[in-house]
Amino acid sequence: MTAPHIPALPTVDAHIYPRGGLDVLSRDEVARLRDVSTGMHDLLRRCALAVLTSGSTSDDPRAAQELYPHFDIQVSQQDRGMRIDLANAPAMAFVDGEIIRGVAELLFAVVRDLAYTTIELGADCGRDLSSSDGITDAVFGLLRNARLLHPADPNLVVCWGGHSISRDEYVYTKQVGYELGLRGLDICTGCGPGAMKGPMKGATIAHAKQRRHRTRYIGITEPGIIAAESPNPIVNHLVIMPDIEKRLEAFVRLGHGIIVFPGGVGTAEEILYLLGILLREENAQVPFPLIFTGPTAAAPYFEQIDKFLRLTLGEAATSRYEIVIADPEKVAKLMASGIRRVREYRIQHKDSFFFNWSLHIPLDFQRPFAPTHEAMATLDLRPGRKPHELAADLRRAFSGIVAGNVKEEGMRRIEAHGPFEIHGDPEMMRSLDGLLRAFVEQRRMKIAGEYRPCYRVVA
Amino acid sequence: MTAPHIPALPTVDAHIYPRGGLDVLSRDEVARLRDVSTGMHDLLRRCALAVLTSGSTSDDPRAAQELYPHFDIQVSQQDRGMRIDLANAPAMAFVDGEIIRGVAELLFAVVRDLAYTTIELGADCGRDLSSSDGITDAVFGLLRNARLLHPADPNLVVCWGGHSISRDEYVYTKQVGYELGLRGLDICTGCGPGAMKGPMKGATIAHAKQRRHRTRYIGITEPGIIAAESPNPIVNHLVIMPDIEKRLEAFVRLGHGIIVFPGGVGTAEEILYLLGILLREENAQVPFPLIFTGPTAAAPYFEQIDKFLRLTLGEAATSRYEIVIADPEKVAKLMASGIRRVREYRIQHKDSFFFNWSLHIPLDFQRPFAPTHEAMATLDLRPGRKPHELAADLRRAFSGIVAGNVKEEGMRRIEAHGPFEIHGDPEMMRSLDGLLRAFVEQRRMKIAGEYRPCYRVVA
Amino acid sequence: MTAPHIPALPTVDAHIYPRGGLDVLSRDEVARLRDVSTGMHDLLRRCALAVLTSGSTSDDPRAAQELYPHFDIQVSQQDRGMRIDLANAPAMAFVDGEIIRGVAELLFAVVRDLAYTTIELGADCGRDLSSSDGITDAVFGLLRNARLLHPADPNLVVCWGGHSISRDEYVYTKQVGYELGLRGLDICTGCGPGAMKGPMKGATIAHAKQRRHRTRYIGITEPGIIAAESPNPIVNHLVIMPDIEKRLEAFVRLGHGIIVFPGGVGTAEEILYLLGILLREENAQVPFPLIFTGPTAAAPYFEQIDKFLRLTLGEAATSRYEIVIADPEKVAKLMASGIRRVREYRIQHKDSFFFNWSLHIPLDFQRPFAPTHEAMATLDLRPGRKPHELAADLRRAFSGIVAGNVKEEGMRRIEAHGPFEIHGDPEMMRSLDGLLRAFVEQRRMKIAGEYRPCYRVVA
Amino acid sequence: MTAPHIPALPTVDAHIYPRGGLDVLSRDEVARLRDVSTGMHDLLRRCALAVLTSGSTSDDPRAAQELYPHFDIQVSQQDRGMRIDLANAPAMAFVDGEIIRGVAELLFAVVRDLAYTTIELGADCGRDLSSSDGITDAVFGLLRNARLLHPADPNLVVCWGGHSISRDEYVYTKQVGYELGLRGLDICTGCGPGAMKGPMKGATIAHAKQRRHRTRYIGITEPGIIAAESPNPIVNHLVIMPDIEKRLEAFVRLGHGIIVFPGGVGTAEEILYLLGILLREENAQVPFPLIFTGPTAAAPYFEQIDKFLRLTLGEAATSRYEIVIADPEKVAKLMASGIRRVREYRIQHKDSFFFNWSLHIPLDFQRPFAPTHEAMATLDLRPGRKPHELAADLRRAFSGIVAGNVKEEGMRRIEAHGPFEIHGDPEMMRSLDGLLRAFVEQRRMKIAGEYRPCYRVVA
Repeated sequence: MTAPHIPALPTVDAHIYPRGGLDVLSRDEVARLRDVSTGMHDLLRRCALAVLTSGSTSDDPRAAQELYPHFDIQVSQQDRGMRIDLANAPAMAFVDGEIIRGVAELLFAVVRDLAYTTIELGADCGRDLSSSDGITDAVFGLLRNARLLHPADPNLVVCWGGHSISRDEYVYTKQVGYELGLRGLDICTGCGPGAMKGPMKGATIAHAKQRRHRTRYIGITEPGIIAAESPNPIVNHLVIMPDIEKRLEAFVRLGHGIIVFPGGVGTAEEILYLLGILLREENAQVPFPLIFTGPTAAAPYFEQIDKFLRLTLGEAATSRYEIVIADPEKVAKLMASGIRRVREYRIQHKDSFFFNWSLHIPLDFQRPFAPTHEAMATLDLRPGRKPHELAADLRRAFSGIVAGNVKEEGMRRIEAHGPFEIHGDPEMMRSLDGLLRAFVEQRRMKIAGEYRPCYRVVA
Repeated sequence: MTAPHIPALPTVDAHIYPRGGLDVLSRDEVARLRDVSTGMHDLLRRCALAVLTSGSTSDDPRAAQELYPHFDIQVSQQDRGMRIDLANAPAMAFVDGEIIRGVAELLFAVVRDLAYTTIELGADCGRDLSSSDGITDAVFGLLRNARLLHPADPNLVVCWGGHSISRDEYVYTKQVGYELGLRGLDICTGCGPGAMKGPMKGATIAHAKQRRHRTRYIGITEPGIIAAESPNPIVNHLVIMPDIEKRLEAFVRLGHGIIVFPGGVGTAEEILYLLGILLREENAQVPFPLIFTGPTAAAPYFEQIDKFLRLTLGEAATSRYEIVIADPEKVAKLMASGIRRVREYRIQHKDSFFFNWSLHIPLDFQRPFAPTHEAMATLDLRPGRKPHELAADLRRAFSGIVAGNVKEEGMRRIEAHGPFEIHGDPEMMRSLDGLLRAFVEQRRMKIAGEYRPCYRVVA
Repeated sequence: MTAPHIPALPTVDAHIYPRGGLDVLSRDEVARLRDVSTGMHDLLRRCALAVLTSGSTSDDPRAAQELYPHFDIQVSQQDRGMRIDLANAPAMAFVDGEIIRGVAELLFAVVRDLAYTTIELGADCGRDLSSSDGITDAVFGLLRNARLLHPADPNLVVCWGGHSISRDEYVYTKQVGYELGLRGLDICTGCGPGAMKGPMKGATIAHAKQRRHRTRYIGITEPGIIAAESPNPIVNHLVIMPDIEKRLEAFVRLGHGIIVFPGGVGTAEEILYLLGILLREENAQVPFPLIFTGPTAAAPYFEQIDKFLRLTLGEAATSRYEIVIADPEKVAKLMASGIRRVREYRIQHKDSFFFNWSLHIPLDFQRPFAPTHEAMATLDLRPGRKPHELAADLRRAFSGIVAGNVKEEGMRRIEAHGPFEIHGDPEMMRSLDGLLRAFVEQRRMKIAGEYRPCYRVVA
Repeated sequence: MTAPHIPALPTVDAHIYPRGGLDVLSRDEVARLRDVSTGMHDLLRRCALAVLTSGSTSDDPRAAQELYPHFDIQVSQQDRGMRIDLANAPAMAFVDGEIIRGVAELLFAVVRDLAYTTIELGADCGRDLSSSDGITDAVFGLLRNARLLHPADPNLVVCWGGHSISRDEYVYTKQVGYELGLRGLDICTGCGPGAMKGPMKGATIAHAKQRRHRTRYIGITEPGIIAAESPNPIVNHLVIMPDIEKRLEAFVRLGHGIIVFPGGVGTAEEILYLLGILLREENAQVPFPLIFTGPTAAAPYFEQIDKFLRLTLGEAATSRYEIVIADPEKVAKLMASGIRRVREYRIQHKDSFFFNWSLHIPLDFQRPFAPTHEAMATLDLRPGRKPHELAADLRRAFSGIVAGNVKEEGMRRIEAHGPFEIHGDPEMMRSLDGLLRAFVEQRRMKIAGEYRPCYRVVA
């Protein structure tokens, strides 16, 4: 597949050992990770490559594969624990021949999560992954195995937003991260570039000033997206959830509040997911600070989002979020006080600080959605449906477009069968189309190149 | 069941929170621990009571139950993680109303292990617990969950020996522990009194002198024995294996060498188990330092053991152990050099330092043995069998006597049906009978009271 | 003194306790710090104010005093150790009413150093501060008391350069800091803004990626300069040396290599100081990596410096430094390999890693220079003198201009008696004048406002 | 001096490096420690030998010198800090050729304290060591330099008592130490054998059970006594005070309460010192828990002490101590509640937790007493004197006998001039004589051999 014009990029072979030595694998787990027949080894290879090309500016999931066609990874057990052998690995992950420590840690996280997923969520695991409780339990199990369930005071802010944003917007995300960090808040993102990286960078400087050493920069990803959104090595806790729905559930059960920066379809998917849940009667009393924010230039962007949400989910939806323009300090103060309310609520309701058990997530939002052409065409986007049901389908619509844009399998489908068709009520479709067009114009769909839509809105 | 003559012992009610906060449970796990219908809650209650009466001088598994009839324990999830509520708990676990920190840690270990066992090894867990590999994998999983798989240099000495030993023998175990501790070795025992406690005490003083702060005093127990052998709070890593066979496997896969002090039937069971395995052709090359030792007065004891082993397992067995009398420093030096060979072997064979994968353990030694009268009567104790097969049955014979002596279920069986009958070759039976009589005479069977044999040897 | 037009800035009153609790003062030490009669309290007040206004963009030493006229600080001993009481302190040092932890640490460092200096270097201390060895011993004592003598591998890079630099230059210092940080190098600067802050910021991000938690961002200052160059709270080790000469000695004995970014007269003073020492016969064999570097636009700047050094100190001087333009990675690699040579040399010569005892510093460079008009006028700036003697006088000339520019006492002298006159050989004076004019034109003298020279070069 | 009959004991040569690497010495400090002309090197050699023979059963200060005549120690500075070179060092400090880590730490403490004392308290140090405040300041300085001033909650119990005690008494001191340790209390003693070692051993086991890892086992000694009372390697903080009076001041300013076990003249000296101070009007309100305790057999011992104190210091003295017989738990509870009162008092009076500034110690108790025959003969032991003055002289009398018993210089004086004569009021002398005779009979004067009194009481 490597085109002849691609220059041979420098590579490195290396053996890597975990420093902390916390993770030990069984013989069986190692064997499964080596098993090429099950696709597990290929998955490991792709996730590892994503981690090793962290910092690259591409969001093309195939780019890394093409640039490093001979890359391979093997996991083995040695006297002191796991060893990772890399062959033809991207030199960009190394400094003077030594792997960047943060990258090495991410590699070990990849191995840990894939080993867990294969065995604990595999076909013969004995879990019921078709019930809502069973899925939530699996999410809990994965996060616990990744040592993310941390019985400290609530302080985790999830930051959502585009991977492809303007310089101005990027600087703004750093400023917000800085103000959050000054207030002792930790950051969790989808761990790609842009709005997923800026808040962590800003927080790093603030945490240094506040002498916070046990900081958490959590990245939550999934196998389909990791290749397009390489984790930054500032991420010091990475977890790979098995699919996009479990990733979304991890965000909302782990985070104590969420900030949304400007973004594209992925961000829209996340907003719809969260609001769809928060609008459920069962969640009416659950506090969940949610702030949409960006620099001055982003004001029209959020107006459009706001309008779309009012139209589709109704005015009630607006009570669940606050829009703040160009004021990082205000964002951080609002978030800090919102999280204080979360803390009180959890104590009152004997809920844990580290996992939001109280939040009711309907099975509709948990069941994996496979964005085939057929599934996309049968989404039911009409007014009159219950807000959370409509939100669930809108979420799926955006999720499908993300897949068509940057996920390998989705892109293959579009190449084979042309754009997805999305049907629905004319007014709603007009509004949706307007939103998507704006994303395209503002270059939020893809980082580089001319954007060719993978969808067609049909009123 | 409380007889009228038992005085009311002082009790305490308390809420206990984990300090490290490492362990978090899911809602499902907490629910199972509360479930009285499955017997899980009763098991939790009994294990917790054993931990709380640590230091008591009884090996009667029912004593604690009778002394603290109103004791109860409940586990719940709070904002920062697990909480344990104790009602009518033995005051002896508290100092001025505050629980001894080490006891609290053991309680949390009990909860952690029972939660894991119920779910990970439960009926619907998807594991194959009938194959040798499946059992070994379960042992690995339990030890990993208990954070015992530690990728450091080999330094773990398992100490076996009686819970009921003489003052002289006890002081000697402390001296050996002290010499081991001076050499940077950690201690693992079955975590009861006597020879299971002395080495830890001695090592504690030596570790303090050597400024070793991350020491490991590991106790490995199982639900049937914990009530008779309460873990000492010096134990800083406790693990409750589901049955005696997994407990024995944990000892030999985790330890890097084993010291045997004088003991009774339990110790004999352990010796037979280990030699039965080491005599397998597959294990001929696996180094495994094994030392029998005691003070001068214990010399005849080890002579008799030695004679019994020669008779039953053959002369070859003697090449696998060394007898050292009254020389703690020599014991420690031999063990240290033996462990250095283990280290080299593991490196050469790419085996882990923290789990002895290389050791072949036949299913015969892994399959749980339920000591019914029938099972005991059908043991095949004859010369001419393969050494490891005979060892397996001898191990079962001793195991049954342990159960009849100090395990609640075994004692009930004896009360109902009289002593077990053990059949076999006359000479072998004579030798066995002699050994058992010596145990009785030396008061190694039970700590207190007149011993009434729970077995009858039939030539 | 507060002019009517200065708006009242927000202030905060606060009690501050040290977190680590490492430093305890005696009753006597506390009493001396409170003593207004000796000027010690005023010195404490000024240094504390500098720390509290960290991040302000002014280099006017009187600005903070005027903006916060009612600020006061008191030190007392409490049950758990020192307490600092602040009255009317700048609100900018606080986040939502809580002091920034890094600022609090700097305050405690100020107290610690002033207490040490008063007592250990006071009039009745018994030290000989007139001998070269006595001065070096005092420098050692201060650095040890500040816990800066750290027996780890050599990795400390001193970064010198201007406090008033262009945006481009600032970004470049961050990039160099980032590359140094990736290679595990720590940063030491004069702890003001500009080139003293950029490398620390860059290194912070790199250290986060490399998971280096015990990083050192050392700031070395002195009472005369601290008000004009407020320490940034990223600085996690601050030491206040008693005068500029001991500060310079601290840099060269503590650092394992030095990078010089573009700067003004202060930077020139530092270059002359270091080259003057390195050109001594006694130091010919002592390795000392020294790199001048800046972005492309800074190339002419370094050409001019280079020319001036050749003219004044001779061609030999050029063998002691390397100029690298616009290549942060190369700078870091050169520094890393230079420090490896330093390491080898120290081992060979049994010199400590943490204090460069081998370096010979003549008393001429150690004796405090008070830049009076008379002292400035009698500097002997002629060719033909021994290079290190001429370097010593040139160093003094630049030092005097720094004082006239940004130090309170120097500014007062200039206001009272007009500019300093600097005499010397015509060609050398022309070159010096050219250099100074360039500094003025490039706005390197002062951060804000029109620069009025505090000197006159007289050929 | 080595008598021909002394067998050559095994010795070891070794280079030792500090592990924590906290202490760095200047070139000057190293030079002074090497200086044989000043006696400093000999002092270092003797103290080091005491530390290396820790655990030996002798209290003869010359024994170690005679057994290891070729022992030498040198201190040097290396790349990473201090190095200690030992030649012909006692093999008993090593395990399989490796020095016991605790012993190595004590060696570094010896070097640190002697370096500090020489320089900071030397002739040219600028301190006023003739005033009460000056002496207290020196004590503070030494303790701070030894990192003993620790801003934690009050929890330090000083245990005084004999180095030569019965097995029963020794076991009792361990039990008391165990009960103190269970309650989170740390131990400080004079760091010899007997009652100075037992409480630390007991506390070590209790601290392990309570999972207290940052425990403090502080030993306070002085050059004259260290040879007779080798520090046990459980001691993890050793400080060598310059003389017996500063050692006593260190005990009472550092400790939060004091327990007195049975002992001999040294213990009597300590009791007189403390009561003399506590009986001062100025200290009437200062809380200071003081408990005399021992096993049942020690009851008569304390009765005799009690009687002696009533006779000499008056009934008032008895209000300052409590006698508890054979009840370790009660001792620990009383101490814990006494320390809670100390804590409240310190907070109220803004006194530090870590140094008892409030306690008034008259110069009389601080000025070094040199026990010459003349000085001993002129002590004024008569009723009618102010209690604290009489206490001061009684303290000196006991101090002189200690010197005559076990300090090298004192023993030399006795050998040269015969026993000290102690004069005084007949009744008081009878009582004193009775007390001393009892010490002799109970074998409290010396560990081994027939005791030949070094004093004569003259009514």
